[in-house]
Amino acid sequence: MPSKTTRSTMTIGDFLLRRLREVGTPHLFGVAGDFNLEFLVQMEEDNEFTWVGNCNELNAAYAADGYARISGLSTLVVTNGVGALSAINGVAGAYSEYVPIVTVCGSLPLKALDRNLLMHHTSADTDYDAVLKAYTPFTVAQTRLTPQNAVAEIDRLILTAWQRKRPVYMELPSDIAYLDVEVPAEPLDLVMPPSDTERLSTCTDEIVTRLTRARSPAILVDIAADRYGVADELQELAGKLQVPIAAINTVKGVIDETCPYFLGLYVGAGSAPEVRKAVEDSDCLLAIGVRRVDTTSGGFSDALPTERIDARGDAVDIGPDNYQAVYLKELLRRVADSVSSREQPASPRTYSAVPASEVAVPSGPLEQNAYWDLVQGFVREGDVIIAEDGTSEAGGWGLHLPPGCTFVTQAVWGSIGYTVGSVLGTMLAAPDRRHLLLVGDGSFQLTAQEVSTMLRHDLKPIIFLINNGGYTIERTICGKDGKFNDIANWSYADLPKVLHPGTNARTFVVKTAAELQAALAVPHDGMIFIEAIMDKYDVPPAALASGHKMAEVDYGPRGPQHRPGIQL
Amino acid sequence: MPSKTTRSTMTIGDFLLRRLREVGTPHLFGVAGDFNLEFLVQMEEDNEFTWVGNCNELNAAYAADGYARISGLSTLVVTNGVGALSAINGVAGAYSEYVPIVTVCGSLPLKALDRNLLMHHTSADTDYDAVLKAYTPFTVAQTRLTPQNAVAEIDRLILTAWQRKRPVYMELPSDIAYLDVEVPAEPLDLVMPPSDTERLSTCTDEIVTRLTRARSPAILVDIAADRYGVADELQELAGKLQVPIAAINTVKGVIDETCPYFLGLYVGAGSAPEVRKAVEDSDCLLAIGVRRVDTTSGGFSDALPTERIDARGDAVDIGPDNYQAVYLKELLRRVADSVSSREQPASPRTYSAVPASEVAVPSGPLEQNAYWDLVQGFVREGDVIIAEDGTSEAGGWGLHLPPGCTFVTQAVWGSIGYTVGSVLGTMLAAPDRRHLLLVGDGSFQLTAQEVSTMLRHDLKPIIFLINNGGYTIERTICGKDGKFNDIANWSYADLPKVLHPGTNARTFVVKTAAELQAALAVPHDGMIFIEAIMDKYDVPPAALASGHKMAEVDYGPRGPQHRPGIQL
Repeated sequence: MPSKTTRSTMTIGDFLLRRLREVGTPHLFGVAGDFNLEFLVQMEEDNEFTWVGNCNELNAAYAADGYARISGLSTLVVTNGVGALSAINGVAGAYSEYVPIVTVCGSLPLKALDRNLLMHHTSADTDYDAVLKAYTPFTVAQTRLTPQNAVAEIDRLILTAWQRKRPVYMELPSDIAYLDVEVPAEPLDLVMPPSDTERLSTCTDEIVTRLTRARSPAILVDIAADRYGVADELQELAGKLQVPIAAINTVKGVIDETCPYFLGLYVGAGSAPEVRKAVEDSDCLLAIGVRRVDTTSGGFSDALPTERIDARGDAVDIGPDNYQAVYLKELLRRVADSVSSREQPASPRTYSAVPASEVAVPSGPLEQNAYWDLVQGFVREGDVIIAEDGTSEAGGWGLHLPPGCTFVTQAVWGSIGYTVGSVLGTMLAAPDRRHLLLVGDGSFQLTAQEVSTMLRHDLKPIIFLINNGGYTIERTICGKDGKFNDIANWSYADLPKVLHPGTNARTFVVKTAAELQAALAVPHDGMIFIEAIMDKYDVPPAALASGHKMAEVDYGPRGPQHRPGIQL
Repeated sequence: MPSKTTRSTMTIGDFLLRRLREVGTPHLFGVAGDFNLEFLVQMEEDNEFTWVGNCNELNAAYAADGYARISGLSTLVVTNGVGALSAINGVAGAYSEYVPIVTVCGSLPLKALDRNLLMHHTSADTDYDAVLKAYTPFTVAQTRLTPQNAVAEIDRLILTAWQRKRPVYMELPSDIAYLDVEVPAEPLDLVMPPSDTERLSTCTDEIVTRLTRARSPAILVDIAADRYGVADELQELAGKLQVPIAAINTVKGVIDETCPYFLGLYVGAGSAPEVRKAVEDSDCLLAIGVRRVDTTSGGFSDALPTERIDARGDAVDIGPDNYQAVYLKELLRRVADSVSSREQPASPRTYSAVPASEVAVPSGPLEQNAYWDLVQGFVREGDVIIAEDGTSEAGGWGLHLPPGCTFVTQAVWGSIGYTVGSVLGTMLAAPDRRHLLLVGDGSFQLTAQEVSTMLRHDLKPIIFLINNGGYTIERTICGKDGKFNDIANWSYADLPKVLHPGTNARTFVVKTAAELQAALAVPHDGMIFIEAIMDKYDVPPAALASGHKMAEVDYGPRGPQHRPGIQL
């Protein structure tokens, strides 16, 4: 008589919560709405979840993204139509940048579908799949739960999100969360399936052979290296074979910047000469998930060697051969174990930076150069740095990071306002680390209210806000003096006390380097909010270069950007 | 020799701007982004547009929605991917509620599509239609402009939006805005095509016959009556035949509430008895665009008579017959002209309300009853009232409106936060009218930053914000004491001075009816922001009833809402 899997009975909502607990997403991001309230009652009665309660759904999606980048997976709860569509830009960003978010949309009761009822939070028609269709290009799996499919589909979606490192979209109809279904007793394990034995073996051999015989091997890492957690394997491999590693700007910090084999960021023609040489002249480049995107390739000024191994999460390309079902972490572990050490690995470089308090600061108005020197001096081991698209990201890329830092940015999707939500997520995922938000005024305005949620949960970010009167990064692209690049001027530093009366947040408005230096010297156990006033034409050189490059790509070499005065 | 249409040459961007000028959308809502900057340069050089410059794209879409509800059409400018998807919930709301918005998305250069380049603001793949696909369920026309199709497609989309009263989505690739194309000299006229002659004639006859012979004719109006601008025709018809008119809650105020034939709102079983009787017992109900949606039909408690004429924007249903190509305004003008007056029309009812200053206010904490009495006493002829979903909308529906008022709400789409954006749009569309925003704290938090844009443009809304500690409307549905229905407490009234330092906005925090009364007595030429503190369990009776009804529809009659203490 065959043994039978033990099964028991549970409501669909409780089963979904059980799975979310098992896979480790104890924080739920989102906004309450009438189609998810019944599920939120189940959640609250479960007693093991923290409901984050965001100010709006886009901010919630950004927060879920930040959380998943640190913890590996996150859950976003929205309501039908209005909530799901408000969040979709954040979920699409997660799709673009390989961040696994389980989106749970409390949706129309199945009764409405059965009876063709016209419902609020819809277009008042019977196109009940409209939102699911909108989500399809931006998620790797979509489903509408029913009592018949719920158990299988919940597991399929969660596992797919985790294995493929991309968001999924699940509709939970409001009239079935309390229905009982038969569920398996076993917990859901987040694991990759084993690779195909033959392919893993031949692929490993081929990589080892090529790397070993190469005269100038090199490694170049993109997003997959972070999401599949292979930094250790790569650093070990680099140490054994003395291979330099460069990183695409999507994953600054993923390879420890004090690792003796770490070269720096590769951004095509804009790279440091030694990085460019190592990558472009390599006779065997091991490229980890590298995607050739305008903003990650120096506006397509890159030149990757054709002698290249392209390893992605679940497949590898080497010359004419394509290896399916070879999974990145398993592969790189095997490769690292298989190569023999050429010599003793070098010792880590010592990290040294002039502490902020010792930076010789210039007098006069605060300028970008001094600003970044002081930020550099403030960063310490283990920090999480969240850098917003634009000036802050460009400045952040120039930082030399001490060990154990995480650098969060959206170099591909590039949705301004992302970081204000994201830092809420990173703080909840890593409460014992310090979180530095680097953001500009223009981006901050899109999502500013989420500072309220940080304060409500007693979180303590250190916020560096550049107030320079608008979208300076756009001025470098087109519209140096365009009014459309100006924004309203806020009393940014006064915002925390409006969003959380009685807050102990310390706020500063700094106009000189000395004032910024003084602010950084004040120890404080609470939110620190530094508004730094700078000139609207003052940009880090890297931002200027990338802005000009972007204009060439966007408008073509004979676009309007070359007219006098149109571009900073 | 045939005469030739005069043609001249113009860039695609300039032609689009010319069309937008011709159809009367001098304000452009949106956010700058690198794929639309070149178009914004053209816009600025055109000198005839006001760039609104919203804080984020969702707010911009809401503002465009409010603007179009007053002026008949609006334009929203976003950037590829990140901007378009941030705005989509606002555009979908416009689709659901029949509001024509021309969405212009500055998008990827055609070069990228030709060369299969991977670009930022995308999923870094070659699914270049991803965003267009996402927009398809929520717009009536979509296109990607090319030099070959631009002239025809710009006209098609603008005209389709206006004729069908729904949004359209247009991608303007960033590398073609400056290319010259041959354009027609004629302006674009926003007109409906003429109806089919035979159908218009037979349909008119049938309606006149039915209405004339009916013993208890009645008129029920939904959104189409507003969007196709047929209130005058309906009131004239009502006057000639002595026909009562009721309105769905989507279009409060569209029929002048002092019109002697106006009965009130019809919301199914929750309607006043005389309204219910007139509508449900009618032997000939002329229904204008009526859609049977849960939130507009008292949770499907309506009972429309089967003896009904269903007239929509472009078609009519009468019994077994369906009349295509019969356009609403032309039809109703013809019907109104064709019926003969039964007697002298009654005179308008005199509008009377106790002025706010004379309301006898109770002592003790401010309660909903006194709040709405005071709002009622404050409303005056010609006001635009924008009422947010939830408590504010429910209270607003109870107001008796003086002549010439406009009442804006999202009774079908119901996206919270909508009104804060929308009122920005209504103010720009009707700068000489007074605009009252009725909003709750929970909704306000989603889109609060747009107050900044109001102040930046020196607009002067009167904001009534109910601070009652969360989503009270959700407490009436499910989760009376659910923490997920609580929100952070802000110093709401302090926000204007943070978002516009030096503002002359007058702000009040009122806790009693007397304080509210005193605040309303202060004349002020600038923004007035009244934060009214009320109890989280205090709701207008209509809100309580609709919340309970909603729970029944959402969770079914045996849902969790009946457990003790789960529902307010």
